[in-house]
Amino acid sequence: MPGIARWRDNLPTELCRNRELEIMLHLRILCRANNRSTALLVKPVGSGSLCILKNKYLLHKRRYNSSHENFSKDEHKKYIGCIGVVSILGFYYYYTSNKRRAFAREHKIESHSGQRSSPGEFDSRYKSYTLSEVAKHDNKNVGIWVTYKQGVYDITDFIEKHPGGAGKIIMAAGGSIEPFWMIFSNHNKRDIYDLLESMRIGNISKEEASTAVEGMEDPYANDPQRDLFYVRNHLPVPDVDPQTYELEIAIEEDTMKVLRLDDIKKYPKHTVSSTIMCAGNRRSEMAKVKAVKGLSWSVGAVGNATWSGAKLCDILNELNVKEEDYEHIQFEGLDLDPSSTPYGSSIPISKAIDPKGDVILAYEMNGKPLPRDHGFPIRVVVPGVVGARNVKWLGRIIISKHESQSQWQQGDYKGFSPSTDWDTVDFSKSPAIQELPVISAICTPQSGDQVVVQNGKIKVAGYAWSGGGQKIVRVDVTIDGGDTWHTAEFFGQDLSKPGRHWSWTLWQVEIPVKEGDKNVEIWAKAVDSMYNVQPESFKNIWNLRGVLNNAYHRVKIDLK
Amino acid sequence: MPGIARWRDNLPTELCRNRELEIMLHLRILCRANNRSTALLVKPVGSGSLCILKNKYLLHKRRYNSSHENFSKDEHKKYIGCIGVVSILGFYYYYTSNKRRAFAREHKIESHSGQRSSPGEFDSRYKSYTLSEVAKHDNKNVGIWVTYKQGVYDITDFIEKHPGGAGKIIMAAGGSIEPFWMIFSNHNKRDIYDLLESMRIGNISKEEASTAVEGMEDPYANDPQRDLFYVRNHLPVPDVDPQTYELEIAIEEDTMKVLRLDDIKKYPKHTVSSTIMCAGNRRSEMAKVKAVKGLSWSVGAVGNATWSGAKLCDILNELNVKEEDYEHIQFEGLDLDPSSTPYGSSIPISKAIDPKGDVILAYEMNGKPLPRDHGFPIRVVVPGVVGARNVKWLGRIIISKHESQSQWQQGDYKGFSPSTDWDTVDFSKSPAIQELPVISAICTPQSGDQVVVQNGKIKVAGYAWSGGGQKIVRVDVTIDGGDTWHTAEFFGQDLSKPGRHWSWTLWQVEIPVKEGDKNVEIWAKAVDSMYNVQPESFKNIWNLRGVLNNAYHRVKIDLK
Repeated sequence: MPGIARWRDNLPTELCRNRELEIMLHLRILCRANNRSTALLVKPVGSGSLCILKNKYLLHKRRYNSSHENFSKDEHKKYIGCIGVVSILGFYYYYTSNKRRAFAREHKIESHSGQRSSPGEFDSRYKSYTLSEVAKHDNKNVGIWVTYKQGVYDITDFIEKHPGGAGKIIMAAGGSIEPFWMIFSNHNKRDIYDLLESMRIGNISKEEASTAVEGMEDPYANDPQRDLFYVRNHLPVPDVDPQTYELEIAIEEDTMKVLRLDDIKKYPKHTVSSTIMCAGNRRSEMAKVKAVKGLSWSVGAVGNATWSGAKLCDILNELNVKEEDYEHIQFEGLDLDPSSTPYGSSIPISKAIDPKGDVILAYEMNGKPLPRDHGFPIRVVVPGVVGARNVKWLGRIIISKHESQSQWQQGDYKGFSPSTDWDTVDFSKSPAIQELPVISAICTPQSGDQVVVQNGKIKVAGYAWSGGGQKIVRVDVTIDGGDTWHTAEFFGQDLSKPGRHWSWTLWQVEIPVKEGDKNVEIWAKAVDSMYNVQPESFKNIWNLRGVLNNAYHRVKIDLK
Repeated sequence: MPGIARWRDNLPTELCRNRELEIMLHLRILCRANNRSTALLVKPVGSGSLCILKNKYLLHKRRYNSSHENFSKDEHKKYIGCIGVVSILGFYYYYTSNKRRAFAREHKIESHSGQRSSPGEFDSRYKSYTLSEVAKHDNKNVGIWVTYKQGVYDITDFIEKHPGGAGKIIMAAGGSIEPFWMIFSNHNKRDIYDLLESMRIGNISKEEASTAVEGMEDPYANDPQRDLFYVRNHLPVPDVDPQTYELEIAIEEDTMKVLRLDDIKKYPKHTVSSTIMCAGNRRSEMAKVKAVKGLSWSVGAVGNATWSGAKLCDILNELNVKEEDYEHIQFEGLDLDPSSTPYGSSIPISKAIDPKGDVILAYEMNGKPLPRDHGFPIRVVVPGVVGARNVKWLGRIIISKHESQSQWQQGDYKGFSPSTDWDTVDFSKSPAIQELPVISAICTPQSGDQVVVQNGKIKVAGYAWSGGGQKIVRVDVTIDGGDTWHTAEFFGQDLSKPGRHWSWTLWQVEIPVKEGDKNVEIWAKAVDSMYNVQPESFKNIWNLRGVLNNAYHRVKIDLK
């Protein structure tokens, strides 16, 4: 498993968690002439500044001491790689050490992890089994066993407590969990290994252990070079041949239509400029209140692009689908988990069938064929709606009375009260996140920056966005704890129709600082066209999954 | 002017301001069988409790010592009257004493108010004029004079500073302001009189003074008995004869159609259950941060009812109006100001023309003909949109490329930064409020209540609502400053389609209290289906007009 080992040992979680992540945003200035693309690059925490320039990907250098033009393609790749790796890491971090300890306590399991240098290695204190003996333990009546390398584990009591759901973990019953952990690579962490070892009951031979992953290759080895636009995939990127690509359209169980790529391109081509944002954007800030599960995103789990493709409503109308007869439109990707279950998600039919909803089956991004990382050959773009519903590598559309039953619709991407924890959470009680609430972020300066005061002022810039097509009507910024708010100016003019403001708003403001001030904390908050505002702090919007992180963004800087 | 004198001297402002107002809400429990109406009555501060009962208007008595059934119709009327009077007071309070002092300072005007017992009375220190002399001073070249009782005033320099707009005040140039102040009765206050007297230049005779209001009657004398549903009218209630009533439909300046009441009733009848809320609901809480202009509403500037009428989109379709050709639908009421300008407002055409927008020309409220106070014979109901756009006594609909140019659309009902004040405000910079943000309120207990702890718990109940058809998905309540949040239960089940949740959500929750606690502060916050949340406090959403008051509702109570 060279791939997994490489990711685990070198880069991913820590790189992401300590916020030393290169966050890159691929922006498009709203309503500017020629639909030209623009890059907004946010440098690593503590070293960056924001630059917004037309038609180029540029990095405003300070520490790296190179000019815009000298910033080489290789250096780009380095940064792009960082994003990619973090994205690949995928899925979420199920187990905190608290959870693990609680489980071990509850089950009176003694942890031997201290006595073992690496997980799954031979441990002479345990009995030896053969793979065929392990294979018999694939149900609750006889106990459920799994192997990891040379270790044998009894996970019977853990099945129902698996945060990823009992359904997934049961698939490994009587066999090795290694193929699953190659996909859900978030498991490759010390505390997960410790939890596993706390359930240790035996060994298998070195020869048998090697058969578990025989012939298997790194499932992510074929993932593409990462783009500037943020990437958050849940499973390895499929390699789809456009010549043989087929999109199935079904009503409940019945296939109504199969569209090839050329067929999709025959529908009227519709272009929409839309921001896509991960529900976990800015999660790292919420995590400071109390630990949450999920990738520790800073402000960069968001991007904006123009997308072109067929309108979903045209296809639904062609099938004579009536809004009142169904409730949801489900999407399935061609990206599969080890049980061949595709990534899945759904949106309300009212959004899908509304011509003004601008939902498209996109085959172009910024005027070029969709990159593999963004869903080549077809991705559904659902403007104003959380990234998780903008399903990539679209394989199937199901018109249904029911929501998608996927883990990502039913057991993830939902909001809860700050007092709901992993022991009390009932995912069926909260609605799946669709349209996202109003949010903003300061991109420059960044926390810890040394900012030069010019003419008694500092410049602050960032983005703001609201789901559901709501327009950003105001961004207020303060450096004195809210005693004085400075209203920001917007870049460009948003001429979208009411309720169809799908693109983010880029803003900047100059704020006078008091002479002698050595440091300030900048706060930003946005207001949308419903006059919804951001909450002040994370404490009262905290939720165990760390989603919907839209409290005021606060950035402490030094002045010089 | 018996009417104005009566209102000023006896009841209105103080009654409203000190929150000893009987707040009455006329609710309809969502999705219950038979569409039965329900009354939710909130008693005066310090004495009330909430009761929700079907098909009856009942007041849960404690202090008044009478049972539900014994609560007489007359007593009802008393409470109803309170609401009515407060509503009639109308319009907003333009002048704070700060403003007045600043103006006087700026113009080096000495206030003589201390030397005069009542405004406009004869003052021997000034020269005498005749009405015809005053009448000549009706433009800036010669100066603009007005009279009030026996006083003559030079308001030339004040015209541009009039918070109600220069256009309105100029209409009184060369004459008496008394007819205007009979309508805009918010002027009948000590600080306004003082401001007026600071501009005093002369006297007219008692005989001439009496002619200013000769033949004029109290313009509000014909206003109806007030309903349980909140009333916020801006002008006196017109008395419309349904036999001669006509609704004009125009495209820009051209009248396209004139509909009589019977014509409107011929369109398919559409019934929608919708909350209507004033933008100033809960203004009294924001005013605690810093003074704001407007009626000092507590939590009662809101109501919920079923409304039946013709769908506006049916009428627009009949005229073959295309959304892309226009921008706004303007509404004019039959209620007129002294210059015969009607109350006016507009909404985006996208809302008006969308069949799912549920905009109706309502002729029934809760299954009965619209009461006069609510717009008889026709009111436009714009679900999910601020009360100010739900124009009553509808006289004219204008399909236009432009917003309504009325004061209520252009110079009022807009949000601003907390740092915008009356010296810096530019109303053209903010969009007119349409859909309102997510809000909730605790109706029981109320601040200062003595609450009996039962089985270690207290009961808390209230309403929550979000504009734009967003559903309320959760209400959280805390009594420990947000360390523990209790998720409330909802009354009934909201089966509305996505984006069409027009009715409020009624909630209640039982919260355990610590033994020995003598008092607690209850906070409530709601979350809507976009996962928008309420802001924590008023400081950072404060705005000079005191609108959009959706911070957490906080209620301090004593326990016993």
